Amino acid sequence: MKYILFFLFVSIISSAQVTKEQLDIMPWPQNINLSEGYFIVSKDFKVNITGTPNARIFVGATNFLRRLDGRTGKFFNQGFITGLNEVPDAQLQINCVRSGKIELYEDESYLLDVTTSKITINATTDIGALHGLETLLQLLQNNSSSFYFPVSKISDFPRFTWRGLMIDGARHFMPVDVIKRNLDGMAAVKMNVFHWHLVDDQGWRIEMKKHSKLIEMASDGNYYTQEEIKNIIKYAADRGILVVPEIDVPGHASAILTAYPEIGSKVEILNVGNGEKGQQFKQIQKYDVERNAGIFTPTLDPSNPKTYELLSSIFDEVCPLFPGKFFHIGGDENEGKDWDSNPKIQEFKKKHNLANNHELQTYFTMQLVPMLKKHNKVLMGWEEIMTKNMSKDAIIHSWKGANEGVPAGQSLVNAVKGGYKTVLSNGYYIDLVYGVENHYTVDPMPKNIALTDEEKARILGGEAPMWTELATPATIDSRIWPRTAAIAERLWSNESVTDLTSLRKRLNTISFRLEELGLTHLKSKEGLLRNISNNQRSEALLDLSNVCEPLKGYSRNSEGTEYKMYSPLTLFADVCTPDASDAILFNQAVSNYLSNKSLVNKLVVFSYLNKWIKMNSELNVLSNNAPLVQPLLPLSKRLNDVSQELLLVLDNKSTLKSDDLKKLIEDCNTKEYADVELAVYAGLKRLL
Amino acid sequence: MKYILFFLFVSIISSAQVTKEQLDIMPWPQNINLSEGYFIVSKDFKVNITGTPNARIFVGATNFLRRLDGRTGKFFNQGFITGLNEVPDAQLQINCVRSGKIELYEDESYLLDVTTSKITINATTDIGALHGLETLLQLLQNNSSSFYFPVSKISDFPRFTWRGLMIDGARHFMPVDVIKRNLDGMAAVKMNVFHWHLVDDQGWRIEMKKHSKLIEMASDGNYYTQEEIKNIIKYAADRGILVVPEIDVPGHASAILTAYPEIGSKVEILNVGNGEKGQQFKQIQKYDVERNAGIFTPTLDPSNPKTYELLSSIFDEVCPLFPGKFFHIGGDENEGKDWDSNPKIQEFKKKHNLANNHELQTYFTMQLVPMLKKHNKVLMGWEEIMTKNMSKDAIIHSWKGANEGVPAGQSLVNAVKGGYKTVLSNGYYIDLVYGVENHYTVDPMPKNIALTDEEKARILGGEAPMWTELATPATIDSRIWPRTAAIAERLWSNESVTDLTSLRKRLNTISFRLEELGLTHLKSKEGLLRNISNNQRSEALLDLSNVCEPLKGYSRNSEGTEYKMYSPLTLFADVCTPDASDAILFNQAVSNYLSNKSLVNKLVVFSYLNKWIKMNSELNVLSNNAPLVQPLLPLSKRLNDVSQELLLVLDNKSTLKSDDLKKLIEDCNTKEYADVELAVYAGLKRLL
Repeated sequence: MKYILFFLFVSIISSAQVTKEQLDIMPWPQNINLSEGYFIVSKDFKVNITGTPNARIFVGATNFLRRLDGRTGKFFNQGFITGLNEVPDAQLQINCVRSGKIELYEDESYLLDVTTSKITINATTDIGALHGLETLLQLLQNNSSSFYFPVSKISDFPRFTWRGLMIDGARHFMPVDVIKRNLDGMAAVKMNVFHWHLVDDQGWRIEMKKHSKLIEMASDGNYYTQEEIKNIIKYAADRGILVVPEIDVPGHASAILTAYPEIGSKVEILNVGNGEKGQQFKQIQKYDVERNAGIFTPTLDPSNPKTYELLSSIFDEVCPLFPGKFFHIGGDENEGKDWDSNPKIQEFKKKHNLANNHELQTYFTMQLVPMLKKHNKVLMGWEEIMTKNMSKDAIIHSWKGANEGVPAGQSLVNAVKGGYKTVLSNGYYIDLVYGVENHYTVDPMPKNIALTDEEKARILGGEAPMWTELATPATIDSRIWPRTAAIAERLWSNESVTDLTSLRKRLNTISFRLEELGLTHLKSKEGLLRNISNNQRSEALLDLSNVCEPLKGYSRNSEGTEYKMYSPLTLFADVCTPDASDAILFNQAVSNYLSNKSLVNKLVVFSYLNKWIKMNSELNVLSNNAPLVQPLLPLSKRLNDVSQELLLVLDNKSTLKSDDLKKLIEDCNTKEYADVELAVYAGLKRLL
Repeated sequence: MKYILFFLFVSIISSAQVTKEQLDIMPWPQNINLSEGYFIVSKDFKVNITGTPNARIFVGATNFLRRLDGRTGKFFNQGFITGLNEVPDAQLQINCVRSGKIELYEDESYLLDVTTSKITINATTDIGALHGLETLLQLLQNNSSSFYFPVSKISDFPRFTWRGLMIDGARHFMPVDVIKRNLDGMAAVKMNVFHWHLVDDQGWRIEMKKHSKLIEMASDGNYYTQEEIKNIIKYAADRGILVVPEIDVPGHASAILTAYPEIGSKVEILNVGNGEKGQQFKQIQKYDVERNAGIFTPTLDPSNPKTYELLSSIFDEVCPLFPGKFFHIGGDENEGKDWDSNPKIQEFKKKHNLANNHELQTYFTMQLVPMLKKHNKVLMGWEEIMTKNMSKDAIIHSWKGANEGVPAGQSLVNAVKGGYKTVLSNGYYIDLVYGVENHYTVDPMPKNIALTDEEKARILGGEAPMWTELATPATIDSRIWPRTAAIAERLWSNESVTDLTSLRKRLNTISFRLEELGLTHLKSKEGLLRNISNNQRSEALLDLSNVCEPLKGYSRNSEGTEYKMYSPLTLFADVCTPDASDAILFNQAVSNYLSNKSLVNKLVVFSYLNKWIKMNSELNVLSNNAPLVQPLLPLSKRLNDVSQELLLVLDNKSTLKSDDLKKLIEDCNTKEYADVELAVYAGLKRLL
């Protein structure tokens, strides 16, 4: 079966002309025309650069050469590209009109023209040219002996100007190499904003020379040095990516308050000796870096002038590190509990005519605007910052949806109607490990709401947040990739590009190619499974991981205390990923069988059922020497039991009562074991 | 068969007492006593630290907890350990008498005592205690449901004080994360010297603030910042590891001379107008960073005062970065060609009564001694620095052997007899990809040469050099590990620990456990194979990689020009490793069969032969869509052909002439394809 498909594929690519359907480009370009003929990649392949580009194109073109050489094994003669017009007769000519700026609304377009003997990339800016090089790498085809580019013309540009990925370096610290390889991944799919969540309850991650208590007391030694930050910004800029830092205030403040408890809002109630004087209050003297996940009460005191003095001084140190125009100040999930119970703050509210905690928070946030403006920064914050007095310059980051009890992306519409620019993140929470279609079908541009052109223009784009309560350097890549490539396509490509079958096919190749950038989303699986199996080689454990997905949404670690920030994330749920590969194939096989009950279609379904029966038996043997396999056995057994019965059912040999069979299948809708669910449940159920 | 072995194993570990043979400790401890009983690892497992240790033990103990938690999945309650006596009733008690110093001859001993309810590590220094923690991790056993430590007493200390790994960051730049994960690997096998080769013909890798031309012109942008260097030294010190930097002079100087051509030795011969005046000479004005591998002529000019001014000034900037006592100045492979052809240098030799280039080099090297002494550094150099006038303070790094036309380690004996301290690297060149036994059987202490105790004491130990002409960040780990663990054992354990079967068994587990440190020696294989197979899942390609080894010694890239420093190292030879796993098993199966021609033994041999026949057929299919598989087909075919015939031979059904059969087998002694050799050749040959 595998071979039949395979030969089919080979025969297609050997035929006269490559078709669009064969191409695994992502994001899909705005315009693409294919013609007959090939440009064959040879050892003499060379790149030449003309025009007036920024020097980042030399880095980018050199990296392009190395990646193409790594794929083709051609041993290119050309080494490092360091200047203009070094090889005038090179086969690949890149011309850039001017130096690109790392800012919103920059011209990122490019024209790519492949003929049988020459390739040209023309772009206004080097940033557009870098996008063209990524497209060219994705164009690469091969037959049995050669690698080639199909003759083609592509003209391309992005639909939205903000195509972001957020990485939370606070919950689990993500070292420099993790950030860099993900910046490479972003560039490969033409994303251009890296939002770096640097401060939260669980840690302060920016080296501070003037406020060193923050790293001494609130980082566990895990922080980015100022040099590393500058280095990452340079690395990002070399890839056309803007870095937007975030210091989350006034909530999510446990780390800040561990170092500076004097600006916290919490008070202790003191029963003073003389009861007549009533209660007195004392500012809390001690906070601790949070080890759990969740929403916590430690909050900065908006009534304390010292709060603003400190923040202003912190921004004076942090802002100059980041050349970009935007600074994210968080502002989310402040429940104001410590505000309510602090009489000094209540008094402050009254005095300033602030009707509620939201207005108080706006008061607080508005104090930050000039602190940032002083450094030419525009304030950005999660949607909670948007209240009636909020500055119209602020960018509203829309994140709430059904889980928070509001319509998805409601704040985005409110923002643009209220005159704010906005970025959508609701629907793009990749840390919640939903399947790719959940993100791909979310468009920043609302479908059924009438917006003026002006309002539409305020929708800057979207951003995928990768929160790291449940991700470590070893697992974060598999939570980001490949699904983020689909979000990148939603934000770059024409809104009509929505076919899920095409998406899945292309994503498979894109995912594989992302590995060459050092991303570990595929290869880390093997090492983690080896730990679980206790170094026993096992196809069975891999098979099980290919039909299981980690619990979705907030259902894993739902109380926030089971997994602390130092708990092991080396478990089966950490190996499993959304879009479990065998589950997708099985569910497809079931569809095929239900639409045509041919013998072949039936045998494919049977092959899965038999595989799972064998898997279960092997896992039992494996578990004799692998304690970490034990918790998986009930799961495997349920799949085994239903598989055995379904083999009989499909051959009309089952003697089981209908209700008992249903129960067998419903047992596979389990979420009780090992923090994973069986992703084949839906397919199994349809077989009834 | 696999299952039979497996059950045997399970039954052993379930029985009453763990035996020494079951333990996979490496390096093997000096003294170990096992008793009945187990200490079972539970969620409540905690660590307490007492005494007067260096703070590095807090980092080490916290890392220990995370690693043990990652293996056992217990979700330990204890998070970060930051101070003394935090948990007085903890099950693991670590006591250190004093703070350890990062220097030679430091006390690295420890006593580890495991009882059923308590574990204690007693050590003079925290460095000894860190070693004890590594041993404890290696002691971990399990049955089907629990992880436990066997009741035991271990007292341990190193045999040699210098147990080093050298990494060449010059040929292929190795980023900070590569260095860090290898420092973790070193600590896991109790190595204590990291020799960092930072300068060579192919690049200068140290950020220089006062001599910025070196990084601007001779690093391709790939260098360690001074902050990164300090950070790595701290990281190493936290693991008990001394960092010894190397700036290789006066040869291997292409990078230095690219920035400072004025101190080079090469001259151009000018034919001046008037022939009577004879030839005139002009200092060469231009050098280039070298892109090939090999020995090159660019050499510093020892007759030029500017050479010493510059070097002195460079050492003034570099030495303060490295707190350790030793500074390696290279000194190897200077052939003196440019000296011979430079009349000014010849004149200088005469004037200073230097009989030959060796004496001239000694003159040069001796000028460096005070430059280093000024910074309290002792000079170390490759063995070429040892000539009659060389300072007795210098440490001689013994590296030459058969390949260089001298008896192995001859310079080591000469050094100690001449009054020098010395470190052995001949026999430990892991970059040459020889099998582990080639290194394990090399002992720094010469066997058949009478040495006084004083002379013996001058043998500091050994060091494994990892040159990187043929290694990238993606492949270097598989060239270092796991073989370096065997060298670590040679340098730590009693000289009587030499059993190869035990070594191989233990190495298998150690290799697996090294993965938890982020090392990629096992998991990188999958990604590279995926590139070669063009994203086709293939057991066949993996099977072939498990019987092939990269060409050994200097035979791959023998001219030094086929692979340039920017050539793809993503090929099949880069995936393959020494000690090819299936080759070891097959060769063992052949031995078993030849010593007992039972049906079972024969069937095991048959299973391999059949596997390779199937593999060949699958590889042919695979190659239809994978150009990088094409070069492997001839190799696979040879193995297929011999396998088919041997199946007949062993069943006495072969009709092939003896000479033809021999030829079939000799064809497997191939080194012509894909830069690899078939590691099963020896086994196949013995079947005749």
